[in-house]
Amino acid sequence: MNKVIKLANRPVGKPEVSDFDFEEIDKPTPSEGELLLEAKYVSVDPYLRGRMSEAESYVEPFELDKPISSAIVAKVISSNNGEFNEGDYVSGELDWKEYQVSDGKELRKVDPDGAPLSANLGILGMTGITAYIGLTEIGELKEGETLVVSGAAGAVGSVVGQIGKIKNCHVVGIAGSDEKVELLKTKFGFDEGINYKKTENMGQAIAKASPDGVDVYFDNVGGRISDGVYQNMNDFGRVINCGAIALYNATEMPTGPRVEPMLVQKRLSMQGFIVGDHQDKFGEAVKQLAGWLAEGKLEYSETIVEGFENIPQAFLDLFEGKNQGKMIVKV
Amino acid sequence: MNKVIKLANRPVGKPEVSDFDFEEIDKPTPSEGELLLEAKYVSVDPYLRGRMSEAESYVEPFELDKPISSAIVAKVISSNNGEFNEGDYVSGELDWKEYQVSDGKELRKVDPDGAPLSANLGILGMTGITAYIGLTEIGELKEGETLVVSGAAGAVGSVVGQIGKIKNCHVVGIAGSDEKVELLKTKFGFDEGINYKKTENMGQAIAKASPDGVDVYFDNVGGRISDGVYQNMNDFGRVINCGAIALYNATEMPTGPRVEPMLVQKRLSMQGFIVGDHQDKFGEAVKQLAGWLAEGKLEYSETIVEGFENIPQAFLDLFEGKNQGKMIVKV
Repeated sequence: MNKVIKLANRPVGKPEVSDFDFEEIDKPTPSEGELLLEAKYVSVDPYLRGRMSEAESYVEPFELDKPISSAIVAKVISSNNGEFNEGDYVSGELDWKEYQVSDGKELRKVDPDGAPLSANLGILGMTGITAYIGLTEIGELKEGETLVVSGAAGAVGSVVGQIGKIKNCHVVGIAGSDEKVELLKTKFGFDEGINYKKTENMGQAIAKASPDGVDVYFDNVGGRISDGVYQNMNDFGRVINCGAIALYNATEMPTGPRVEPMLVQKRLSMQGFIVGDHQDKFGEAVKQLAGWLAEGKLEYSETIVEGFENIPQAFLDLFEGKNQGKMIVKV
Repeated sequence: MNKVIKLANRPVGKPEVSDFDFEEIDKPTPSEGELLLEAKYVSVDPYLRGRMSEAESYVEPFELDKPISSAIVAKVISSNNGEFNEGDYVSGELDWKEYQVSDGKELRKVDPDGAPLSANLGILGMTGITAYIGLTEIGELKEGETLVVSGAAGAVGSVVGQIGKIKNCHVVGIAGSDEKVELLKTKFGFDEGINYKKTENMGQAIAKASPDGVDVYFDNVGGRISDGVYQNMNDFGRVINCGAIALYNATEMPTGPRVEPMLVQKRLSMQGFIVGDHQDKFGEAVKQLAGWLAEGKLEYSETIVEGFENIPQAFLDLFEGKNQGKMIVKV
């Protein structure tokens, strides 16, 4: 048997398990040039929420009653394609199916003897690459600057902060529990951590944690948390708008303080950024990240949920902050 | 006698004439190395509003009971400085005084036989340079793109649009009266003009005027007008945040739709910009602008108010949109 998870409804506001359909289909047979793949690790990511809506975006919306897809590490079960052998491991954007065929064109081989397989969905995958490219290409982080990261205990945020420390920056992380804040300082080497759920005045908290002001803000969150950081930006500061998870489930247009006067007065830049636009830098990013990982300069966290049928719930848990580091489902 | 205008109070919200003090003082005598200057043309600009508040900004706040200063074209009445001769004309940041002395260090000589003297405060001065550097250095405007400008009939906006046309762009201007909109099309060669005061749904109006979407938005205004432009930005669009006159007199934090989700989804950039940070490009800018002016490719408008004592009122009139093009006081 072969399980598949499809999009049942376009969610309004916060998605629910009932927005997903579970079906069983036949195991497919690969044609000439194709591979049969068995999913091993499935990545669930906040950006998938956008694809569940009908609105045009930078990636096509998922279709109703069709399988959802995300980054997956899979094992090659059989191959009619000269470039892949039975037993190889690959990663790529694949359907939420236990078994599927592929022509191999968009797949990348991964080394099962290097880092753990799941790392290819995180620190050596899209989230690590996002952290690296956002800081270097968009934020142009310089040695000794002050870097603030929101969603700091998440898969992207924790790498952002560690790269900041490698660059000798003063690094402040914002997260949603005391446990996460503790982890930022002990495991990931951040200088300061702020639990936004226990902080009434974010502006004051950021000011206290950033005595020289904020030069670069890597934002995964948006909303009230970001307002507090903006207030503390130095002249010529740079905001890397990587995500806005606090706003993704909004059903009405979220409002907040207007940023224009501050942008002019402090000559700030805000730049939206999607890692897929920077594929020419992926090779450099993975090489650098793998190097730091081998040297012991990078730590990473994963929350691994077991069971193919738990993929939707793991996705929903992202919006409750139940993950710590990269959220991955082990099939 | 020698008239001087000082800052009497720090305005709260909209400034009033009573926030200014008029005094008469002695005409000064230049020491060794100094010049005696007579003000001829005085520039009044929205950014001066910021300097009237106590808050730290990119320029020092004006001091209470001290003269206000702005860009001025003056005539050298007498000189104890070898670099300037009696009868020369100069421009620079000078006090709102009929007569004052200067050591000449921050002054630039202007050619009284080229463009009219007042042009050195506008199209060949800070406003023209702002338009040029904003579009080229910050917005990186490319041939054939769609350019939207707010405050389009103003001193900066009218030059922005004309540079857009020189670069074969589709140019849409937003202004606050039918007369201004008419002028955008007839005098300045804009493709489309929108009177925001008669437009309920700015988003729809921008969409209609920009059939290919908006690539570059040169914003002098901020607020509701800008919200309508943001909705129509193309992927990888650039917002040049040059000013936010709609928000400068606000006494409470202005709020509006949050921009973060849009920035990420469309990979937009917003960049605050102050021309004074780009002094290394002034020479190039003035040379290019003077060339286009001599070739008849640039038109400009001035609203010239007569009389030194009318400087404060001319400044206040900026916030009512009473100027058309550069607001200048002829002493």
